[in-house]
Amino acid sequence: MTPMNFLTQEETADYLVTGSWSKKAIAEAKRFGKTHVVCTSEDRNFCYIPAERKNSSNPAYVHFTSNNTIYGTQFRSEPETPDGAFLVCDASSDIFSRPIDIAKYGIVYAGAQKNLGPSGITLVIIRRDLIERGNPDVPTMLSYRTHAEKDSMFNTPPAFGIYLMGLVFKWLKQLGGLEAMAERNAEKAGRLYAYLDDGSLFRSTADADSRSLMNVTFVTGDAEKDKQFIAFATNEGLDGLKGHRSVGGMRASMYNAFPADGVDALIDAMQRFETGCV
Amino acid sequence: MTPMNFLTQEETADYLVTGSWSKKAIAEAKRFGKTHVVCTSEDRNFCYIPAERKNSSNPAYVHFTSNNTIYGTQFRSEPETPDGAFLVCDASSDIFSRPIDIAKYGIVYAGAQKNLGPSGITLVIIRRDLIERGNPDVPTMLSYRTHAEKDSMFNTPPAFGIYLMGLVFKWLKQLGGLEAMAERNAEKAGRLYAYLDDGSLFRSTADADSRSLMNVTFVTGDAEKDKQFIAFATNEGLDGLKGHRSVGGMRASMYNAFPADGVDALIDAMQRFETGCV
Repeated sequence: MTPMNFLTQEETADYLVTGSWSKKAIAEAKRFGKTHVVCTSEDRNFCYIPAERKNSSNPAYVHFTSNNTIYGTQFRSEPETPDGAFLVCDASSDIFSRPIDIAKYGIVYAGAQKNLGPSGITLVIIRRDLIERGNPDVPTMLSYRTHAEKDSMFNTPPAFGIYLMGLVFKWLKQLGGLEAMAERNAEKAGRLYAYLDDGSLFRSTADADSRSLMNVTFVTGDAEKDKQFIAFATNEGLDGLKGHRSVGGMRASMYNAFPADGVDALIDAMQRFETGCV
Repeated sequence: MTPMNFLTQEETADYLVTGSWSKKAIAEAKRFGKTHVVCTSEDRNFCYIPAERKNSSNPAYVHFTSNNTIYGTQFRSEPETPDGAFLVCDASSDIFSRPIDIAKYGIVYAGAQKNLGPSGITLVIIRRDLIERGNPDVPTMLSYRTHAEKDSMFNTPPAFGIYLMGLVFKWLKQLGGLEAMAERNAEKAGRLYAYLDDGSLFRSTADADSRSLMNVTFVTGDAEKDKQFIAFATNEGLDGLKGHRSVGGMRASMYNAFPADGVDALIDAMQRFETGCV
């Protein structure tokens, strides 16, 4: 929806390409205007967040994907936004996992299914002035203006999902809010990364400065052994560890709702597998 | 999505305008190509389904809204579709309330929230050859081809809603399927219409040959009395009877899930209100 509402044929939008979702996002933007790649980490299968970046001279907006679930990488801070442009973030897989400085953003959008609630809803946070500025000739249902004017009730809203999201927000507040979640998530992922860095069998696939606190990707370096570990772990009740087919290996997804003792259980299983006590 | 996928600037799409949803549908279609009004009942505030109709000479498709919730009208049968065109139906408010001859349709789409399950899902039934024929230059997410090729899992599907829809389908089958639902719905609405036609105080607003089995709209003819009845009925536990602001009066929505004794309770309340035993 962002390019449809905010990009014209004459304008350029800047994209930071750090994984499959940003690749999909830039492909859609090409239908509406010009695009510019600020940086890409495709050369090393997206295992890092590039530090070297170059914006175009006058972009309409700058788009990034804050966390890349498949590749286990995450932005530590917001990319630069040239004067006159606004920042757009696909925060689907790390929204509300940590506080962000919302004043830096023009649009944040996030599918609910990772940290917010059930699949089937997208949360959008948009700056008021952008609602006004959007392209007026957009199908009604796909215009941010429509949804803002109707208080998100232009169409029958997905009431059950919104209700569940409300419960999740209350739960987040009870736990101490986003500051507390950030600590919790850093602690959970930190423990697993520490084990990976110490361990002899498993290693993290993402560069140290780009590691995600939501999705920890790791390998043994031997595809056959990876498979054996996944089978072993599944049998121990640790399900869903298989990495995405485009990277292979393992992926431990540790969204807000994932408990700290789940990390303990995973590390324990990895240790036992490594030492042969299986 | 239908005009976006199937209408070009040079083509014409035919619309039967029988209420606010078909008006909205034709307005969106105008963004993509030419439109033609086959018939409209706006002259009498959409209280009937016009019998007189005129298709354009070579439409891409013919679009109709099978049931009009606000105005309490419903098509008895499918409109004619000229050779070379296909039929498109917005069946949001009466899908699975009765059997239809699906071979007559090119596309049926229906928001789930009336007869299928929770809000937030749209069910689409589309003919295989149309999937292939659709405009290739459409945003990926808005192309029928995308969803068909990925078995409706291009994006993370709204799993909870789909699961609930599955339960509703099983329930429909248990009750005897769509034939049984059609009988049940005809019986429920028939009883209320019979009372309206006999009664002296209340009268049905839709023409007899156009009446909806899902939404029965009625008035006393006196806005003040309507208001009194709604307050009385609400007090009796009969909620949601207020008609849409564009028609006023009362509306009894009796979707598949609405029980037959709910109709008894409504008629009983109407009788007591009418005879002054309140």
